[in-house]
Amino acid sequence: MALNNFPLGFRAWGLYSGIGKNKSKPDLALFFSETVCRAAGVFTRNQVKAAPVILSQARLRAGRARAVLINSGNANACTGARGMKDASESAKAAARGLKISAEDVLAASTGVIGQFLPMSKIKAGISRLCSAVAGGKSDPIQAVRAMMTTDTVAKFEGRSLKAGGRTYKIWGCVKGAGMIHPDMATMISVILTDAQVPVSFLRAALKRAAAESFNCATVDGDTSTNDSVYLLANGASGVTFFSAKDLKDFEAALKDLCLSLARRMVRDGEGATKLVEITVTGARSQADAKQAAVAVATSPLVKTAMFGNDANWGRILAALGRSGAKLAPNKIKVAFGPLAVARNGVGVAFSEKRGREILKRDTVPISIDLGVGSAQAKILTCDFSFDYVKINAEYRT
Amino acid sequence: MALNNFPLGFRAWGLYSGIGKNKSKPDLALFFSETVCRAAGVFTRNQVKAAPVILSQARLRAGRARAVLINSGNANACTGARGMKDASESAKAAARGLKISAEDVLAASTGVIGQFLPMSKIKAGISRLCSAVAGGKSDPIQAVRAMMTTDTVAKFEGRSLKAGGRTYKIWGCVKGAGMIHPDMATMISVILTDAQVPVSFLRAALKRAAAESFNCATVDGDTSTNDSVYLLANGASGVTFFSAKDLKDFEAALKDLCLSLARRMVRDGEGATKLVEITVTGARSQADAKQAAVAVATSPLVKTAMFGNDANWGRILAALGRSGAKLAPNKIKVAFGPLAVARNGVGVAFSEKRGREILKRDTVPISIDLGVGSAQAKILTCDFSFDYVKINAEYRT
Repeated sequence: MALNNFPLGFRAWGLYSGIGKNKSKPDLALFFSETVCRAAGVFTRNQVKAAPVILSQARLRAGRARAVLINSGNANACTGARGMKDASESAKAAARGLKISAEDVLAASTGVIGQFLPMSKIKAGISRLCSAVAGGKSDPIQAVRAMMTTDTVAKFEGRSLKAGGRTYKIWGCVKGAGMIHPDMATMISVILTDAQVPVSFLRAALKRAAAESFNCATVDGDTSTNDSVYLLANGASGVTFFSAKDLKDFEAALKDLCLSLARRMVRDGEGATKLVEITVTGARSQADAKQAAVAVATSPLVKTAMFGNDANWGRILAALGRSGAKLAPNKIKVAFGPLAVARNGVGVAFSEKRGREILKRDTVPISIDLGVGSAQAKILTCDFSFDYVKINAEYRT
Repeated sequence: MALNNFPLGFRAWGLYSGIGKNKSKPDLALFFSETVCRAAGVFTRNQVKAAPVILSQARLRAGRARAVLINSGNANACTGARGMKDASESAKAAARGLKISAEDVLAASTGVIGQFLPMSKIKAGISRLCSAVAGGKSDPIQAVRAMMTTDTVAKFEGRSLKAGGRTYKIWGCVKGAGMIHPDMATMISVILTDAQVPVSFLRAALKRAAAESFNCATVDGDTSTNDSVYLLANGASGVTFFSAKDLKDFEAALKDLCLSLARRMVRDGEGATKLVEITVTGARSQADAKQAAVAVATSPLVKTAMFGNDANWGRILAALGRSGAKLAPNKIKVAFGPLAVARNGVGVAFSEKRGREILKRDTVPISIDLGVGSAQAKILTCDFSFDYVKINAEYRT
């Protein structure tokens, strides 16, 4: 299937290799570039890192890559030396199949923590996958489906931009969200562009874009052992950035793409029925603003109230109070969308009916002013439903 | 009703004043001492503090008290100057009814945040309550029931001790747990003793006991605007502590009592089906040990796995990894009760059936070794069930 905004010179494919139990859902994905790419990555800050994260972090020091191999169903995390060997052998098998250097293969895994990869199944799968892709097969949606775990929809999108009178594309996909049953180690994103971008800029732009998108998204506060975002630029469009404006445009599109993917990821969070966008203003520092927003965004009490369409601002004040962020208890303001519910730290009269109407929407903006400064931050979260508990209480077996 | 270990010279009573909707459940409690007590308190660290917390903190600077007035159904938090006036007037009304100094009345409230107290109902209730108590009525269980919100059982217990050949008692009660629907602002505990204890020691001992009990308990990670623990010593037993051993015995009994009450509180946490005791050893510092234990204890993924009886140690490692505590990923050990599930950061073969058996018990001990030092900490938590979501998603109205 041809996608409008899928960049030139890339191919993607996915198939079922036997890691997962559901044969109708692919579990092995490959993104491949016909030429060597400039590449950058952003990874989990969890001290416990999965083998493919450790492998890819090391490889990206060279700033190049040609392929990203991803499996779902098994996180290859907490698997020690054997896990490192399995990750490295998988990458080697892909390199052989694609006739490229093993050093140019990045890897990501998502699924159960603490189990070893079924290597014979995976190697056979990689062999078939590489044959297909080397033979010219490409369907990015198949690759996106292969990354998915408890995601309910495939999440991807692209942009078309111009630089120096020529067109280039930037496209990304993401799987999330929630360290999902049974410990699906959360988010993986692959972003591809056919522009030629200097690697130093690629790294800096990805870091900034992730900081304002994926790193501002929370489903359950648990950061995983496997979070990885890859950005590959192969230059196949012939577009090279010469002007500061070109770089600025690219970065703006990248940020916009990442934010949109992060929104989709959170909206598709485990059991989520709505997206909640929390904006904190009036903070003493940006770190304080983020700390306050994260405390609200991860509060089970706030999240269950959102699920219940309950304009329960008291829980927001309580979460702010314990956040550690500097605040003026008698100056705090809270609003749900346009509806002010608290001012000067005290409730204001408002229509509960109107509150429920706003909270029933599929996107709920909460704005909070701490009353002690001018810094701000935004965090994306979702509500906390029966389904979250259901999904996460089930046995791994 | 006479309770075995209720200390001499105290009375307690509770009645329905009309704050709550359920007329068969009392909502106003009074603990009263026939003489002036030495008194100490420990309060929430939340920056957003309820009016009765602010009032009582100021009063306890004098180190004395004779009564504790508690209402459930309304937290009197985020209520500004009017809330402070209401708290102060309630205490004044109690003082009048008991013919004691208003400065000797401590207060606590628990219930909805952000609503004003229904003062005419409360004043009428206080008047009846004080008449009953001044007339000699006493039933501590009525008082405990009046403090309860979504608690399912009344939680209290006592100890009898000896010092200098004479007997004295220490008794405590607690309400919890979870910043409950609809924002029941969480825990309140009242501890009474008829020994005579110097106020400086009372303060220090309560602080240490709370640090190892109530401050090591978490239901949902949300600390409330209203948490208060009061300790009153009236000396009515005639027991005065002269020896270091007496003080040591008292502190040991106080700690034991607080820990037992904290366990009961967590076990009765919202929707909880079991108590989970997390012990972290091998940490670089006690702060690190606590940080690691809290990360595990508040992880929705770990808590839902506990609800599902799933020995899912990968989620524990993921929580430890993001906790910020120093750890050696390749040295971590995890066990459920006697069952080792991970060693050197990697899973060990274990019987899933045996794991489920251990997790199905009503108390589940999880032990974790971080492998980087010798400090340790223990945190009490509970599992995360459908009922937690149900209780907290309901409308306030």
